[in-house]
Amino acid sequence: MRVFGVDPGLTRCGFGVVDGGPGRTVRPVAVDVIRTPADEDLSRRLLQLSDAVEKWLDDHRPQVVAVERVFSQHNVRTAMGTAQAGGIVALAAARRDLPVVFHTPSEVKAAVTGSGRADKAQVTAMVTKVLGLKTAPKPADAADALALAICHLWRAPMKSRLDEARARAEQLARTHRAKLAEARERMTR
Amino acid sequence: MRVFGVDPGLTRCGFGVVDGGPGRTVRPVAVDVIRTPADEDLSRRLLQLSDAVEKWLDDHRPQVVAVERVFSQHNVRTAMGTAQAGGIVALAAARRDLPVVFHTPSEVKAAVTGSGRADKAQVTAMVTKVLGLKTAPKPADAADALALAICHLWRAPMKSRLDEARARAEQLARTHRAKLAEARERMTR
Repeated sequence: MRVFGVDPGLTRCGFGVVDGGPGRTVRPVAVDVIRTPADEDLSRRLLQLSDAVEKWLDDHRPQVVAVERVFSQHNVRTAMGTAQAGGIVALAAARRDLPVVFHTPSEVKAAVTGSGRADKAQVTAMVTKVLGLKTAPKPADAADALALAICHLWRAPMKSRLDEARARAEQLARTHRAKLAEARERMTR
Repeated sequence: MRVFGVDPGLTRCGFGVVDGGPGRTVRPVAVDVIRTPADEDLSRRLLQLSDAVEKWLDDHRPQVVAVERVFSQHNVRTAMGTAQAGGIVALAAARRDLPVVFHTPSEVKAAVTGSGRADKAQVTAMVTKVLGLKTAPKPADAADALALAICHLWRAPMKSRLDEARARAEQLARTHRAKLAEARERMTR
């Protein structure tokens, strides 16, 4: 499975494509940071980012897009720009019928380093290691985008196993409730 | 000038198109509220909204798009959705080379009612009045979208007069500085 990880942002947007192999093996495909000029109109910046996303989707043909979920940031203006950048990426993926999955920063950190509170250096170190890169991806946004893709590859099988178990439990509960209702009806007859 | 006003949102997005005539006359063209289902994927909701924006741009051919600028809201999740919806609208406009202008809620209220702290009922009442509508536009998101378009029509000439005055003042300052430098040079010669 090929995953396109995106660390959204207007000033710097991290793009990373990773292939998942058997077991937990992962292979780097592409990584870059897209920048849009801060003195440009917001709508122009969004268009530049959207065009870059379209190009990456054309060039790398991922099967799923993993985007960092933004909750809040100290700077409201930055948070809004980040949310808008993430929305633009999700829209481009939806246009191509690609699934879009959001992961929180702590989910990404936990998946890659084992700790949801790992710092940027630790995340970069693990990304460099698991992808077998000769040099660490820079800036942090590039490493974060790759970490998102890896997180998705490693969490996805676990998540689908969980979803399966949950569906099975619900089916059991439904059967149980039906039998109980049947028994009650028989008793009141 | 025809303005497309948008009160962005994922659950409810207000769309309003208004034509500006001579002086301060304004004429309603279209108004609606676009809804996307809350239980759908975020990327699907953004796609539905984007398709609706494209259709309105096709149908009504506005010359400018006015969007409410979101600063912060109590609910972070809602604020993110609002920012993303606004970003999707701005992107669609930028794709067609249409200018996108953002106005804050207090700018809109001040332009339409005279007070930046007017309540929703007051805004709706003024929008109904200035557009000569028989019934008040509902829900509030619809009235807000029309208010945004009116705000843009009424602020734009004032803003361009201000920009002109500022440019003239800067030109004067430049001439003055040049003359001063010339005089100093003559004195030191």
